Amino acid sequence: MNHQPDHPANVPADAVLSPMTWRGDHLQMIDQTRLPSEEVWLELRTAGEVREAIQSLRVRGAPAIGIAAAYGLYLGVWDYPAENRQDLIRHLQHVSGQLASSRPTAVNLTWALNRSLENVKNHESKDPSVLKQVVLDYAQKLHEEDMRICVDIGYAGQPLVPQEAGVITHCNTGSLATGRYGTALSVIYHAHLEGKNIHVWVDETRPLLQGSRLTAWELGRTGIPYHLITDSMAGWVMKTKRADLVIVGTDRVAANGDTANKIGTYALSILAEYHSVPFYVAAPLSSIDLSIPDGDHIPIEERDPGEVRYTASCATAPEDAPVFNPAFDVTPHSLIRGFITEKGIVRPDFSKNLSRLLSD
Amino acid sequence: MNHQPDHPANVPADAVLSPMTWRGDHLQMIDQTRLPSEEVWLELRTAGEVREAIQSLRVRGAPAIGIAAAYGLYLGVWDYPAENRQDLIRHLQHVSGQLASSRPTAVNLTWALNRSLENVKNHESKDPSVLKQVVLDYAQKLHEEDMRICVDIGYAGQPLVPQEAGVITHCNTGSLATGRYGTALSVIYHAHLEGKNIHVWVDETRPLLQGSRLTAWELGRTGIPYHLITDSMAGWVMKTKRADLVIVGTDRVAANGDTANKIGTYALSILAEYHSVPFYVAAPLSSIDLSIPDGDHIPIEERDPGEVRYTASCATAPEDAPVFNPAFDVTPHSLIRGFITEKGIVRPDFSKNLSRLLSD
Repeated sequence: MNHQPDHPANVPADAVLSPMTWRGDHLQMIDQTRLPSEEVWLELRTAGEVREAIQSLRVRGAPAIGIAAAYGLYLGVWDYPAENRQDLIRHLQHVSGQLASSRPTAVNLTWALNRSLENVKNHESKDPSVLKQVVLDYAQKLHEEDMRICVDIGYAGQPLVPQEAGVITHCNTGSLATGRYGTALSVIYHAHLEGKNIHVWVDETRPLLQGSRLTAWELGRTGIPYHLITDSMAGWVMKTKRADLVIVGTDRVAANGDTANKIGTYALSILAEYHSVPFYVAAPLSSIDLSIPDGDHIPIEERDPGEVRYTASCATAPEDAPVFNPAFDVTPHSLIRGFITEKGIVRPDFSKNLSRLLSD
Repeated sequence: MNHQPDHPANVPADAVLSPMTWRGDHLQMIDQTRLPSEEVWLELRTAGEVREAIQSLRVRGAPAIGIAAAYGLYLGVWDYPAENRQDLIRHLQHVSGQLASSRPTAVNLTWALNRSLENVKNHESKDPSVLKQVVLDYAQKLHEEDMRICVDIGYAGQPLVPQEAGVITHCNTGSLATGRYGTALSVIYHAHLEGKNIHVWVDETRPLLQGSRLTAWELGRTGIPYHLITDSMAGWVMKTKRADLVIVGTDRVAANGDTANKIGTYALSILAEYHSVPFYVAAPLSSIDLSIPDGDHIPIEERDPGEVRYTASCATAPEDAPVFNPAFDVTPHSLIRGFITEKGIVRPDFSKNLSRLLSD
């Protein structure tokens, strides 16, 4: 876990938060539910504690959840007195099931757990203690892989960021959502690490305020200049302030480039188009789903009305106010200037270039 | 105070909130600071109580503040043992000064108080008791005038509202901001009163949440179907739901039609343009300021960062987060389909048609 990319510039990479670290016998992890008011670090020593952390959203963001679960699997078996290979695998399956049920809809969670289990099954050793180490190695590999992808996205985006740059971003796509660095925020971190003068406009991102609670906190901690704005101010910022580009993350990219992301992204892309501000999506290859032809085929989750009726724990609307609360929206590919992936920038024609990228 | 317009339809006009009512010896007023969780009605019996209500934002909205202050002036003099005309006018000036200091930047407040004082001075009677009645009559006249303007705006907008209509609105422009009915919301109320099937998308309107706290409450009380959305959802609503028009209010309209209104209005106008949804501004003639040539000459107030760092009383960002918090933005006239005034709808060319309207 000493993954430290080379940074050519005058800013120490240590400034960027490491949200999770394996400490030999436990997983150290920042508690996101206590941010931004308190910086509380958890020491997770059992699978049950990891399960609780995922369920209670102490860790969130698809890659981060997958990594935490992979470590959780090891914490659930390291001291299990397995009689033989079969016994250990049965126990691993049991622990995996418990971890997977912590957030049943989180795709990355099941994906990471299943991949770790498959990896053990494919391993030829019959010694339970060796297989336990295989589980830990796999978690660390997943963590390092994710960080490498984030770092590569960060560097890949640099040609898009001028030496002096105003950048608008939405939601939290930073260290807190991944193994470290994040996706869209990784481009911003790496611009800063390279010594560029960057200023970030942080959409607060209603209803769940990932921008004000998490992104503002991450940036502030790193010393990158930013201003927090309400989502309704982004258009006015484009008109009256320096805004050289918009970078957002994504939950899923369809084969034609249509992109599902946090609600508000669609509006932001239209505002960017109107002001001729280039709009980019930071997208790890794992988010590109060629089996979905276009945005019309991406289902949009509608969430609890309480998220809009309340802000944090404050009631801010009538108790019975009818609410429309789509978690995501779909930005049409026509409004996207390019995708920033770990393999470089993908430009239109997306239908051709995304599938070519994935088949490389 | 029995201003009851004729409503041709199947919905009782009583359904629309009367936020203030003169009750012979006191002003009855809803306490907006307790909404939406509690409906508390105040009985204001002294100028001091009215002053406190204005200062504490129990009443807000430019027209509503002006009306309340005019009643407050009467409550400050009705039992004053004036020896003569001069003595009464001196006392009125004293009370007026106290009321005016409750919100020094509220233009309508000073305007209403000064007009009432001028009205007394221009009155020829020398009898203090007659002059006291003149003050009360003036407050009631101001209240009725404002309601008449609101009703006229409501009717004027009807040709724009189809029998089945989805309408998007922003901020609070309803009864709570005026003598009754409001401006943009008056168009919605009158569509409902005329029996149209109207559905409203209510922007919550960060940072101060006038949409979720006030507009949602007003509409819910009246039985008009609505859904509350975060400001970031309006674009997605235009794309995926029925949105026939956007109607917003205004703080100030420049001679060329550029319009200052609550932050977020500018973005909404761009989203409306992108989706070909007509965008209208409900604007009483008093908000049209021909002395301002265009939007570049409208100063934009920046407000306390705490409004964005907090939602209601919940901290939702780092304590020291830098914030950009413009209270208003300016929508260019090119994105506005028309103004709904008490004298009818004004369409482009606004430079010509607004000045013609005001000189009629």
